[in-house]
Amino acid sequence: MTDVRIVGAGMTPFGDHAGRTGRELFGDAARRALEDASLPADAVDELFFSAFAGELSESQSHQGPLMASAAGVSAPATRVEAACASGGAAVRQAVTAIRAGVADVVLVGGGEKLTHLSTPDATEALSLAADERWETRIGTTFPGAYALMTRAYFDRFGADRTDLAHVAVKNHANAVDNELAQYRNEITVEDVLEAPIVSEPLGLFDSCPLTDGAAALVLASDDVVRSRNLPASVAVAGVGQASDRLSLQERDSLCETPATETAAERAYAASGIGPSDVDLAEVHDCFTIAEVLAIEGLGFAENGEGYGAARDGTTTATGSIPVNLSGGLKAKGHPVGATGVAQIAELVKLLTGGHANADAVPDATVGLAHNAGGTVASAVVTVLEVVE
Amino acid sequence: MTDVRIVGAGMTPFGDHAGRTGRELFGDAARRALEDASLPADAVDELFFSAFAGELSESQSHQGPLMASAAGVSAPATRVEAACASGGAAVRQAVTAIRAGVADVVLVGGGEKLTHLSTPDATEALSLAADERWETRIGTTFPGAYALMTRAYFDRFGADRTDLAHVAVKNHANAVDNELAQYRNEITVEDVLEAPIVSEPLGLFDSCPLTDGAAALVLASDDVVRSRNLPASVAVAGVGQASDRLSLQERDSLCETPATETAAERAYAASGIGPSDVDLAEVHDCFTIAEVLAIEGLGFAENGEGYGAARDGTTTATGSIPVNLSGGLKAKGHPVGATGVAQIAELVKLLTGGHANADAVPDATVGLAHNAGGTVASAVVTVLEVVE
Repeated sequence: MTDVRIVGAGMTPFGDHAGRTGRELFGDAARRALEDASLPADAVDELFFSAFAGELSESQSHQGPLMASAAGVSAPATRVEAACASGGAAVRQAVTAIRAGVADVVLVGGGEKLTHLSTPDATEALSLAADERWETRIGTTFPGAYALMTRAYFDRFGADRTDLAHVAVKNHANAVDNELAQYRNEITVEDVLEAPIVSEPLGLFDSCPLTDGAAALVLASDDVVRSRNLPASVAVAGVGQASDRLSLQERDSLCETPATETAAERAYAASGIGPSDVDLAEVHDCFTIAEVLAIEGLGFAENGEGYGAARDGTTTATGSIPVNLSGGLKAKGHPVGATGVAQIAELVKLLTGGHANADAVPDATVGLAHNAGGTVASAVVTVLEVVE
Repeated sequence: MTDVRIVGAGMTPFGDHAGRTGRELFGDAARRALEDASLPADAVDELFFSAFAGELSESQSHQGPLMASAAGVSAPATRVEAACASGGAAVRQAVTAIRAGVADVVLVGGGEKLTHLSTPDATEALSLAADERWETRIGTTFPGAYALMTRAYFDRFGADRTDLAHVAVKNHANAVDNELAQYRNEITVEDVLEAPIVSEPLGLFDSCPLTDGAAALVLASDDVVRSRNLPASVAVAGVGQASDRLSLQERDSLCETPATETAAERAYAASGIGPSDVDLAEVHDCFTIAEVLAIEGLGFAENGEGYGAARDGTTTATGSIPVNLSGGLKAKGHPVGATGVAQIAELVKLLTGGHANADAVPDATVGLAHNAGGTVASAVVTVLEVVE
C-alpha cells in the first residue's frame, strides 16, 4: 500500500476575523501549507474541502471550486461534510485518493466563518448537524444534547462538574503559548464552576467558542516525497471512520460513543499502533464531557474512568499522554470545517518540533487526532507516526 | 488496479413526494439497490451520500449517518457535495475507496426534497451553488447565468431557440416510457417556443423542473463480484472530475465548458475509451443549452456544432448516439443530490436491458454519464462498460 506523508501544514490564527471572507482565510492557510511543503500550487492533483455551515453563514455551498481558486489550484475539488467531523473525513478522503493512485499530491482544507452570526443564527446553523425530525424540531440543540450525556455520565459514574472543569483549565493552559489560539488566557477551576450555566450541568467554560479560521494540509505519496526529496517525516499510519445513529434517542447509551470506539479500532488496526503507543492526542472537546468520552473511546482510559484524567494530570502537558496540547476546541477555537484539519496540522508541528508546546513531548513519535460530528454520530481517528 | 463493478441500482420515482421526507425516499432507493444487488445491508463497508440543498430545504446537514440509518447500514458515512454534480462526485469517491482497498462494497446514494419549497425559497436554495460574492449578491441566479451563456453561444455560432427546443422535445419524448420520470408527456417545438420566458432567451421548457427523489447504487470490487458470484456485468471503466472558476465572470469564454472537457479527457484516458466508442450518454441538461455544451465538451460534436444534434436526429433515440434516453433532467426531473447517481442507474438499466428504452440501444456496450455543478464549475464524467 502506498505510504502517505504529510508534507505541509498551514493555518490562519483562530478567532474573530471580522470583515474577511471564508475564501480569503482558506487562501491564507493554503498558501502557508504549500510554502511549508515547498510545492507550487500546480503540483496539487486534488482538493478536498471541509465546510459545514457555509450555506447559512455565508450563503455559499459548492465551495470546492471556490476554494480551489482561492488556493490557486486547478484540480478536481470536492466538498466533504460530516458535521464537526468534516475535516477528519476530508483528510481520510485525501489519504484514500493517494492510496488509490488517483492523486499524488492532495490539498486538504477546511474553514468556517461563524463569529459574525448572532447567537440565535449560530445556534441554528450548528443545529443542522442534529436530527431535525427528532431533536432540533423539539428544541434540542447541542449544549442541551451534551448536557443530557453529561447528566447520564454523572449519574452512572459519580463524576462531577469539578472533574470536567479540570479539562477546561488544562486546555486553556495549553493554549497560552499557541499563537494561533483564540483564547490564550489561563482560567481556574473556580472560573469554570462560577461561569454562567449554558445547559445544566454545562457552563460557559465547559463549551467551546464560535470561531473563524481555516487550516490546510498537503499530503503526498511516498513516491513524490522521494522524487522531490521533500523533508516530510510524518506519515499517516492509519485512519478510521465510523458512524452512529444521528439522534441520541436511538442510542443504547448516552455514556459511550461507539463511533469513536469503532473509528479508533479501525485506525489502530490499519496502523498496527495501539492506544498505549500513542504519545499525544488532539481530541474533539466541543464540550468538556466530550473530551472525557473521547479518551475513553480511544482507549486512553477505561469507560467511566476518563473523567479523572485531567484532574490527576494524566492528560496535562506534563502527563503520560498529553491531550489537546494545542488548547483544543475549547481554547484554540472551533471553526467547524477547519477543526479536523487543524488538529492534524497541530500534531505535525508538535511531532516535528515546530510548535510552541513541542518541548512538552520531545520524544514523541506517535500522535492521534480524534474528530467528531454531532453527538458523535460521526467520528474519524487518524494516527500519525514519525518515520525516517 | 481493482476493477469496480456496479452490482445494484435503485431509484424512487422522480416527481412530487409531498409528505415524505428525504430519509424515507433514500431508504426506498437504497433498499431497491441492495435487493437488485442481492446483498444484505451489512455487506456495505462505506456510504457516500450526495446532498445539495438539505440545509435550506429540510434544515438538515450531517446526512451521512442519517442516511446510513435509513438504509439500515452501519458503516462510515460521508456526505459529498459539488452542487448539482454532487452525485457524480459521490460515485467517484466510491470508486476511489474500492480501488484503494478501503472498502469492498460501497453504497452510493443521493437525494433531495425540493417541491415543497416556494419558488423564491427554491431559487435561494439553488443559488447557493453560484458565487455569493460575485453572482448571487447582485441578483444572478442560474436561469440568468445560463441565459448569458446561451446569448453568447447564439451570438458566436448562429444557433437559435428552435435548435434548443429540439433538445427539450427529444428529452420529453424519451421520458414517455420511463415510469420513474416526472414528466411523461410529449411536447412540440411550438410548445417550447411559446412557453413563458424564464430568462431571455430561455423559456420554461428550456429549464428542468424542481423534483423530489432519491437514487442509490451498490458498487463492489471484482473480488466481491467473483466470491459472491454476483451477476454484475457493468464495470466502471473510468471516472474523471474537474473544476473551473465558480463565477462566470472569471471564465475566458461563456461558450465552452473546460471542466467538462477536462473531466472527459480524464475519464477517457482512464478507460481507454474515446468519444466515438460511446454508445449512449446521460448528460446534465439542467437547461437545453447545457446539453449542447455538454455534448461538445464530451467530444460528441465539435465546438459550435452541437446545437444541431437534437434537431438533426444525432442524439435522438434512433440517432447514432442517443443522449438522455431517460428523459434527462428536463423530463425525468432533477432532485439535485440524486441526479448524478440516477444517471448511472439509468445507464446500467439501459445497458443491461432492464429499461423501457433499452430496445433503442440493443447492442450498446459503453455508456457515459456527465454530471455538472453550477455553470459547470464542477464536472464529473463516468464511463461504464459492459464486461464478461
